[in-house]
Amino acid sequence: MKLKTSLIMCILGTSSIFASELLIENAKANGLKAIPSNKTELMKIIDDKKDPITKEKVELGKKLYFDPRMSKSGLISCNTCHNLGLGGTDGISAAIGHKWTKNPHHLNSPTVYNSVFFNAQFWDGRSPYLADQAQGPVQAGPEMASPPKLVEERINSIPGYVAEFKSAYGENVKIDFEKITSTIATFEKTLVTPSRFDKFLDGDKKALSADEKEGLKVFINKGCVSCHTGMALGGTMQPFEVASKYKFANIGDFKGDKNGMVKTPTLRNITETAPYFHNGQIWDLKEAIKEMGSVQLGIDINDKDAEKIVTFFKSLKGDKPQIIYPQLPESTLKTPKPQDN
Amino acid sequence: MKLKTSLIMCILGTSSIFASELLIENAKANGLKAIPSNKTELMKIIDDKKDPITKEKVELGKKLYFDPRMSKSGLISCNTCHNLGLGGTDGISAAIGHKWTKNPHHLNSPTVYNSVFFNAQFWDGRSPYLADQAQGPVQAGPEMASPPKLVEERINSIPGYVAEFKSAYGENVKIDFEKITSTIATFEKTLVTPSRFDKFLDGDKKALSADEKEGLKVFINKGCVSCHTGMALGGTMQPFEVASKYKFANIGDFKGDKNGMVKTPTLRNITETAPYFHNGQIWDLKEAIKEMGSVQLGIDINDKDAEKIVTFFKSLKGDKPQIIYPQLPESTLKTPKPQDN
Repeated sequence: MKLKTSLIMCILGTSSIFASELLIENAKANGLKAIPSNKTELMKIIDDKKDPITKEKVELGKKLYFDPRMSKSGLISCNTCHNLGLGGTDGISAAIGHKWTKNPHHLNSPTVYNSVFFNAQFWDGRSPYLADQAQGPVQAGPEMASPPKLVEERINSIPGYVAEFKSAYGENVKIDFEKITSTIATFEKTLVTPSRFDKFLDGDKKALSADEKEGLKVFINKGCVSCHTGMALGGTMQPFEVASKYKFANIGDFKGDKNGMVKTPTLRNITETAPYFHNGQIWDLKEAIKEMGSVQLGIDINDKDAEKIVTFFKSLKGDKPQIIYPQLPESTLKTPKPQDN
Repeated sequence: MKLKTSLIMCILGTSSIFASELLIENAKANGLKAIPSNKTELMKIIDDKKDPITKEKVELGKKLYFDPRMSKSGLISCNTCHNLGLGGTDGISAAIGHKWTKNPHHLNSPTVYNSVFFNAQFWDGRSPYLADQAQGPVQAGPEMASPPKLVEERINSIPGYVAEFKSAYGENVKIDFEKITSTIATFEKTLVTPSRFDKFLDGDKKALSADEKEGLKVFINKGCVSCHTGMALGGTMQPFEVASKYKFANIGDFKGDKNGMVKTPTLRNITETAPYFHNGQIWDLKEAIKEMGSVQLGIDINDKDAEKIVTFFKSLKGDKPQIIYPQLPESTLKTPKPQDN
């Protein structure tokens, strides 16, 4: 009897630790992964042996990322729609680009943060990796509207850039559109934002509050984790055939890829990246969670549970890499002029 | 005889030092002033006892400066047209703002760097200081198009901003349009860019090369310094009645203020701030110098002299303050939505 009591006491006393351990195990069993805190481990995931990440490329890529001369008008940079101060997004429903053109499919700009962890890029997943993705918006008429030749002429006309490309890739580098955009992608690969959630997954049981743990539990139990999983809690292609069930399905004509699949957005930094969904039609995170429950999972998530999940989501707000705003190299008389039409 | 020879030798040996001293004296006599290298001295010039510069205000002002939510659309920040990575300008002829609207007078965005030293703000000098100036573009229809009420509602709806205003101005701060824009101005006051030219004026005779000194001499002797003087080498109101003589006078309808005066642009960082003139019609700095000679000074500046002046201008490229790109506080459901129309 005495032994039994003390055993119960012991279990009660350690119940929260026990529970945390079980929760971590459960989270991992459901595919959730921590961003490695160890730099070597992280590099194994984000680096590419064929085009290794170097300090020179990252610094150069950062400049190009912030440089509006990458656009036809000279006014729009990658950072315009993927603002590193706003969770890597623009905070508007449908992207607006060259000549104030709204995205023709009414698509919302996805965040660039942690996009290196995605299995696919763009809402329809048509691009497999960042270096390929980066070529799209630069050229797209409603976005930066720069023909590759214009980008090449601009960058090659700026001695400061030429010198940096040589320093990053060697004297004989060919500064073509592919090299320019892949350098931007190299910078983007470094935009990872570990948060308290990662510490928790790594075993720091106090990294999340009791309410956040409760939210994580609900998040897993409701099945959200079936799509929002992996290191990005998203970034994989998932069925979108229920698109028409969305209450806002009539906004824009996006129906997923040819197989009716859509790229699941990451949940990291989700409190910073409203409005939500492919067409940016929902601003309230709680409402977004409930909508996802009913449309994608076919279940009702009540207010209380949705609130719990929101509480968990707050723990996904990560530490952003510190960005020193770059001083961009000077244009010359040979630099093709901005074209605002 | 011996004495005379050694005196001549002595003069020859020190001639360049002598020449530099004379040049510095001459530059100062013509009103050119160094940006104080001593912080206390600088603060005497840029600070305002009624609204002192503090670390909290500068950090908050920086966030607001980079925050596109200051604009009606949520897309345009102060930095869009006064890009701190591009010499504080946008690199296009006439500013483009809300709904891709071109400046109706075809006016070029002036640099924000060193604008604290200007006696007047805007091309027509209608604003006497930065805190007043900052109210203009935020509201202007073709620029950020934000009614003051919208700006106030946006900022007050963002708890992160409210907390920072309280920390900067005290618990009872009223976060109104004036306070918001004057905070931006406080940040802008810190955007000063001392260069090698300042070191030279302060007596470091080796801070400029022989060619740069020669250029400075020509710059003074040709009379450029009659307008481009003071700490900013510009920033004062000067006669513009000769506007119609410009070869591009027909671009835009700007004719100066009601007295036919125009604010002289600063020459600091001028190699970074093309295109030149109020309507951004000249991209070639040498051509700009020659045009100014003939129109404003009524003299011909030949190619060789214009080149010399360009060489001097390169020494005006200053050290920019290091800006850590800000993480902006999250919007809430109460935050007025972006309006793209």
